[in-house]
Amino acid sequence: MHPFVVIGGVAAGMSAASKARRLRPDWPIIVYEQGSHVSYGACGLPYYLSGVIPDYRKMIIRDPEYYRKKMNIQVHVRHRVLAIDPAGKTVRVKNLDTGETFSQQYETLLYAAGAGPVIPPVPGVNLPEVFTLRTMDDGLFLRGRLQEAAAKRIAIIGGGYIGLEVAENLRLLNKEVLIIEKDERLLPHFDPSFSAIIQGEAEKNLIKLHCGEGLVAFRGDGHLQAVVTEKGEYPCDLALLAIGVRPNSELAKTSGIALGCNNAVAVDRRMHTNIPDILAAGDCAETYHRLWRKNVYLPLGTTANRQGRLAGETACGGRDEFAGVLGTSVAKIFSLACATTGLTEQEAARAGLDAASSTVETLDHAVYYPGASRIHLKLVYCRQSAVLLGGQIIGREGVAHRIDILATAIAARMTLQELAEVDMSYAPPYKGVWEAVVLAANVAQSDWEKAKVTIHL
Amino acid sequence: MHPFVVIGGVAAGMSAASKARRLRPDWPIIVYEQGSHVSYGACGLPYYLSGVIPDYRKMIIRDPEYYRKKMNIQVHVRHRVLAIDPAGKTVRVKNLDTGETFSQQYETLLYAAGAGPVIPPVPGVNLPEVFTLRTMDDGLFLRGRLQEAAAKRIAIIGGGYIGLEVAENLRLLNKEVLIIEKDERLLPHFDPSFSAIIQGEAEKNLIKLHCGEGLVAFRGDGHLQAVVTEKGEYPCDLALLAIGVRPNSELAKTSGIALGCNNAVAVDRRMHTNIPDILAAGDCAETYHRLWRKNVYLPLGTTANRQGRLAGETACGGRDEFAGVLGTSVAKIFSLACATTGLTEQEAARAGLDAASSTVETLDHAVYYPGASRIHLKLVYCRQSAVLLGGQIIGREGVAHRIDILATAIAARMTLQELAEVDMSYAPPYKGVWEAVVLAANVAQSDWEKAKVTIHL
Repeated sequence: MHPFVVIGGVAAGMSAASKARRLRPDWPIIVYEQGSHVSYGACGLPYYLSGVIPDYRKMIIRDPEYYRKKMNIQVHVRHRVLAIDPAGKTVRVKNLDTGETFSQQYETLLYAAGAGPVIPPVPGVNLPEVFTLRTMDDGLFLRGRLQEAAAKRIAIIGGGYIGLEVAENLRLLNKEVLIIEKDERLLPHFDPSFSAIIQGEAEKNLIKLHCGEGLVAFRGDGHLQAVVTEKGEYPCDLALLAIGVRPNSELAKTSGIALGCNNAVAVDRRMHTNIPDILAAGDCAETYHRLWRKNVYLPLGTTANRQGRLAGETACGGRDEFAGVLGTSVAKIFSLACATTGLTEQEAARAGLDAASSTVETLDHAVYYPGASRIHLKLVYCRQSAVLLGGQIIGREGVAHRIDILATAIAARMTLQELAEVDMSYAPPYKGVWEAVVLAANVAQSDWEKAKVTIHL
Repeated sequence: MHPFVVIGGVAAGMSAASKARRLRPDWPIIVYEQGSHVSYGACGLPYYLSGVIPDYRKMIIRDPEYYRKKMNIQVHVRHRVLAIDPAGKTVRVKNLDTGETFSQQYETLLYAAGAGPVIPPVPGVNLPEVFTLRTMDDGLFLRGRLQEAAAKRIAIIGGGYIGLEVAENLRLLNKEVLIIEKDERLLPHFDPSFSAIIQGEAEKNLIKLHCGEGLVAFRGDGHLQAVVTEKGEYPCDLALLAIGVRPNSELAKTSGIALGCNNAVAVDRRMHTNIPDILAAGDCAETYHRLWRKNVYLPLGTTANRQGRLAGETACGGRDEFAGVLGTSVAKIFSLACATTGLTEQEAARAGLDAASSTVETLDHAVYYPGASRIHLKLVYCRQSAVLLGGQIIGREGVAHRIDILATAIAARMTLQELAEVDMSYAPPYKGVWEAVVLAANVAQSDWEKAKVTIHL
């Protein structure tokens, strides 16, 4: 029997290979990864830049040696797959160190090539001081450059999670940091009032914000001197592009694998592509969304691991379907955490749902126990049924787990009242006697009842 | 119209009065509280002893003045209700300061007299250095005594949440602390392996543990000298009784109000007692349990507030029923949090359910982000349906909110697989890429599938 061949060895690829190994102890499994490392926590890279994570090896969950010796998975780093031949069921592979190329037959192929940073086609984007932070190799290179005394002023293009996480870590290195965001505000997928809180937190930490300014060019004669926007020109020594990612799907496309939304590889809920025996998973692929009830492009580490695991099962004959995502995410922005799940009101409207929302501000734990701080919660719900559709939370403590409570309630299709009636825990160091999520559900339920009365009048 | 009269002004009583006021702006509302304070966070008392909460006034959410002026609720502290006359719909009240007694008619009466500490009938229990910690007045008195240099060695009778919370705070005051627990281990409602972790944490903090030792007597000639157990005699200067609470239901009983389990006031799911126009709520009353599907005695601050709120609604003609509790609770024990919800395997068996369990140990956040620490999770589930029935968690971070995720899943009757498929958030400072709860659900699901296969063989 030919092997299970996996293209890409970071999150989805290694999850798939590991799952397949557990299910099929004897099947040969080969992974080709074009980078130098597999199975690493790419989400740690911003913290590696500042030394919060001192050693890059800490981010490597398992190395090729481990997979080879302990799991009998053949992992080849610095190997790029150049072509896929679906008819012959082979891939053409290049060893990037020796330059040698060879062919490998497969029984089942998993395409898990990940995503790459969006590179805007502006003048100067190829200057040597313009960076991206996507792979371990990016991180190693950028940390080195940041040690240099000349790297004082850093421009970050993009005010999303990654841009803000990097900004925080650059401040720890005492760099001057400015953020260019083309939208009118940071984190535009949050409510304006929530974005404003994050904006305040960034400014308190001396980040210079330039929102509502599209990037025009990087200026510099051989070396970067300034970033140019629609509104101004800002001197800087280094620049980081963090304006999003796009799926690495070129190879798939040229091999006849169909693409879907955002040019991500189109997959069904068992991770099949349109071509028999070729699966896809992770940041290169579409994701089924539980509330949109269709595939979207929403590349996240959690999703990549889940999809990879499921692809490994499918490769071994499993029949389970991917339950789908809610777009749940969280990020640490200086001393705040901000998190979101499900749909915003605008998204709900686009999904054909009539949604309303309620927002509360309370304390993350008992007012009388030291250290209580403000937490803001917004719940989005169906105006007809009061079923929970989404939520946003910003605060200092317990934000990541509270958004998970909302995600659980959404997955269970709970109404506001059902959520408000959950018997949650209480102790002064961790909670108020009315848990913030319960309080938010109570307020939303009461808003919903009032609105219902108004409609009936 | 006669007033809504409330007996007891801590959690349930004040929640009921406040809710009734919001629903019925004009109805006269009177609260009688025999203590000196209303509406305070009794769960803060252990932290007040050490000065972690420096000022007792911080624990007072609202004072009688506030209720009088802002909410038009007549709150009378140091007023004890001596008798209830259901036929005449009056209560007989004594002003503890003046000694005066008077009668007050009611339209609806709420019995929210709370619970008192269990006082074991052992010799010496009335010695002046034997304390309880239940009310604000207890807390004020005990903090004073702890300031005295002579109060060096403190014996705590009872190794439950309160005993351990007090132990932690006494260590902050540099007291010598010993705990006497009649069960073979601390926190006997947790799994033995979980109790062992807590035991280790207590011993690391120099608490002397005497488990499996029943209390026999307090020895002392006018003043406490030692606590005597079945196994030994331990010199001490102060002793705290923390062996549980019993409902303050004597007045209810003598007034013809029916009692239920543990002598708590029997209530239906709208907080009615057996007597028309008399409701009961809070620590003096029974509680409907969602999994037992019957009333139990499970006095907790969260439940008291919920029941009180609902009783206020019922008093105003509301038709909602109490959704019930899961026994969800959490406590901080030195640097650990321990939490539980739903049923243990033993309880499930007694409830007629065939339960199994799985336990995992993982990290509370990404291994490569500083400060990751061990977290232990146990899931209890139905052997037939794989529906989640209960959980226990011990760890340093995110324990209180993670138990709430389990409580939400139990309330929604989720199976292990449904819980494992929830799209939860991820960022290295807060989570691993496989959230601990999801990992636990995945492991339990896999254990469950294996057991199912075994049964079928």
